[in-house]
Amino acid sequence: MQVRIRGQLQQFRTVEFDVPSHTLRLIEQRLLPHEFRVIGTRDFRATARAIRDMVVRGAGAIGATAAYGLAQGALAFRGRDLPRFEAHVRRVFEVLRDARPTAVDPLNAMAGVLRAMRAGITVAERQALALTAAGAFADADVAHCRAIGAAGAPLIREGMRVLTHCNAGWLAFVDIGSATAPLYAAHQQGRAFHVYCDETRPRSQGATLTAWELAQQGMSHQVIADNAAGWLFSRGCIDLVIVGSDRTLGRTGEVANKIGTYTKAVLAKRHGVPFYVAIPLSTLDWNLRGGADIPIEERDGAEVLGAWGRTKSGRREYVRVANPSSTAYNPGFDVTPPDLITGIITPAGIFRPRELWRRRRLLGYPGPDGK
Amino acid sequence: MQVRIRGQLQQFRTVEFDVPSHTLRLIEQRLLPHEFRVIGTRDFRATARAIRDMVVRGAGAIGATAAYGLAQGALAFRGRDLPRFEAHVRRVFEVLRDARPTAVDPLNAMAGVLRAMRAGITVAERQALALTAAGAFADADVAHCRAIGAAGAPLIREGMRVLTHCNAGWLAFVDIGSATAPLYAAHQQGRAFHVYCDETRPRSQGATLTAWELAQQGMSHQVIADNAAGWLFSRGCIDLVIVGSDRTLGRTGEVANKIGTYTKAVLAKRHGVPFYVAIPLSTLDWNLRGGADIPIEERDGAEVLGAWGRTKSGRREYVRVANPSSTAYNPGFDVTPPDLITGIITPAGIFRPRELWRRRRLLGYPGPDGK
Repeated sequence: MQVRIRGQLQQFRTVEFDVPSHTLRLIEQRLLPHEFRVIGTRDFRATARAIRDMVVRGAGAIGATAAYGLAQGALAFRGRDLPRFEAHVRRVFEVLRDARPTAVDPLNAMAGVLRAMRAGITVAERQALALTAAGAFADADVAHCRAIGAAGAPLIREGMRVLTHCNAGWLAFVDIGSATAPLYAAHQQGRAFHVYCDETRPRSQGATLTAWELAQQGMSHQVIADNAAGWLFSRGCIDLVIVGSDRTLGRTGEVANKIGTYTKAVLAKRHGVPFYVAIPLSTLDWNLRGGADIPIEERDGAEVLGAWGRTKSGRREYVRVANPSSTAYNPGFDVTPPDLITGIITPAGIFRPRELWRRRRLLGYPGPDGK
Repeated sequence: MQVRIRGQLQQFRTVEFDVPSHTLRLIEQRLLPHEFRVIGTRDFRATARAIRDMVVRGAGAIGATAAYGLAQGALAFRGRDLPRFEAHVRRVFEVLRDARPTAVDPLNAMAGVLRAMRAGITVAERQALALTAAGAFADADVAHCRAIGAAGAPLIREGMRVLTHCNAGWLAFVDIGSATAPLYAAHQQGRAFHVYCDETRPRSQGATLTAWELAQQGMSHQVIADNAAGWLFSRGCIDLVIVGSDRTLGRTGEVANKIGTYTKAVLAKRHGVPFYVAIPLSTLDWNLRGGADIPIEERDGAEVLGAWGRTKSGRREYVRVANPSSTAYNPGFDVTPPDLITGIITPAGIFRPRELWRRRRLLGYPGPDGK
């Protein structure tokens, strides 16, 4: 997507590989929204650190980063000894895997790269295949997001007011994003509409990342406190809701997403406002049998008890807002049941949540024995 | 209520008048929750500044402060000339009124003091009556809050998990508070229960003031992001909701309160959890015919775009959280309809919201010609 740099529009991806120099270019997301900077990692260890330290975050983005990191590591091997090469690649895989142990996307992305490499006979062939496979993973991520945009854009009509929650934007993917994809597509098709970005406490990804993304594209938007959405709904000021998802259950149509998503879905239902969830197919979980089985991460209370931001003098600082002797309860995600969801926007089209299982072949269901 | 000062419990009111020195003692609320300090204002101009600069906030608290400020001003008059005394009192009234022009409580409180003074014939008599009337206003505020507590305490049973929103606590009144009154009463009656304090963005009065209040009393509580309440409801972790109100319509039972209240009421309804609103009678508006007529203040977007807190080095600072080029929409209040409210807890007992108009004589309705 485009970024405004000193008034000029420039095109960037969140994750981009420079082939001649074997350098992975990543948007340094920890500096956003106050500063835009692209950093380069020159070897797989630096790439793993970028994943671990959250320079890059978001399912698609860390998947592509890990895939490129694996290719980077493979390319760094000198020699023709295949067993030694394979042992080296295994170590690279482990370093990248351990950078974010609970994330599933790096594992899936790297599995794809390892599979592709097997077709090569020599070290050089396998190195070349690793790079091609990583690039293919990144391009597929972009293509999927573009397809989500094509499927979802017709939902957004001229003059609409759209609510979104958290950031399922292009910064969380290689480009375009999931929940933002229909917004970007409709904007590029020339329709004017307004986006309300839920602040999304406690980590404020709506106020920081989504607002930053929309501002770069010159799109009409405002940040609201999470508390304000109910008032907007009750006054008829929201026409459509689009959110992303961390995990969508293919068997039941339940959606796990950033804490607060469920609340917005309840409000949308009460006010008869369509509520859509935009997802790449990789988010579909075909195994779990019910939302109660989804593990909900309990995060550090400090996120709720304070805020990160920029002081007047330009330093990035954490301020403690809450009473110093109080603690917080901080669940990271919630689960929205299918009866509150109008449709799931996927690269393969829009489906009712209870329809996912019936359409599972189309949606990448790997079959009863997994993949 | 009690405050822990270096491990010792001491008793304070939010607003307290020291008769010998004519000094009004106010809890400096802008320093909370990080620092507890009581300041003294020695004349009505300093008292007016304390109202204007929000040293003291909350309906009951600023009402009592204005009443004492008027008495302070009256007592400062030297001489026996009644017309000159009355002109002086008029000026004092105007200075205090203009300190917070949109607030109604200082006006009502000072009207009561002026009415009481008319019974005096000499300047000295009127001065004495002013002080008595101001003290009576403050004591009545405490008595009303205590009655709210007595009415509401039976709702809170052993082991319950209670959700509250914003701060309708003793810091907003002379003592005890409205939404907190049933909590304090049940705690004093020896029942153990847990309170979830909604952070209450954008001004975070739940995380700062309510959490501070409950911590002083040694009551079990946790701060949650406003987004987390839905998840707690859906997991059956909230048994009761009690909030305050800025304005309750006696004719319809609609409740205007801090932004986000409506959302919590919608969630409570969906999950069959009782939702109560605790109010002093002064909050009842008998004139407005519907919630659509309630003016909703739109506040400065900076509140949503950042946060006030304490840095590691101990300075109180505002940090900008949101994207620098984005703006915010910041409604201060919302309106909850009567079908979402289980009961209104008043000093005169608990009523269903649609019952208020039928019970208006009991609830202080001033009659068709108002007062």
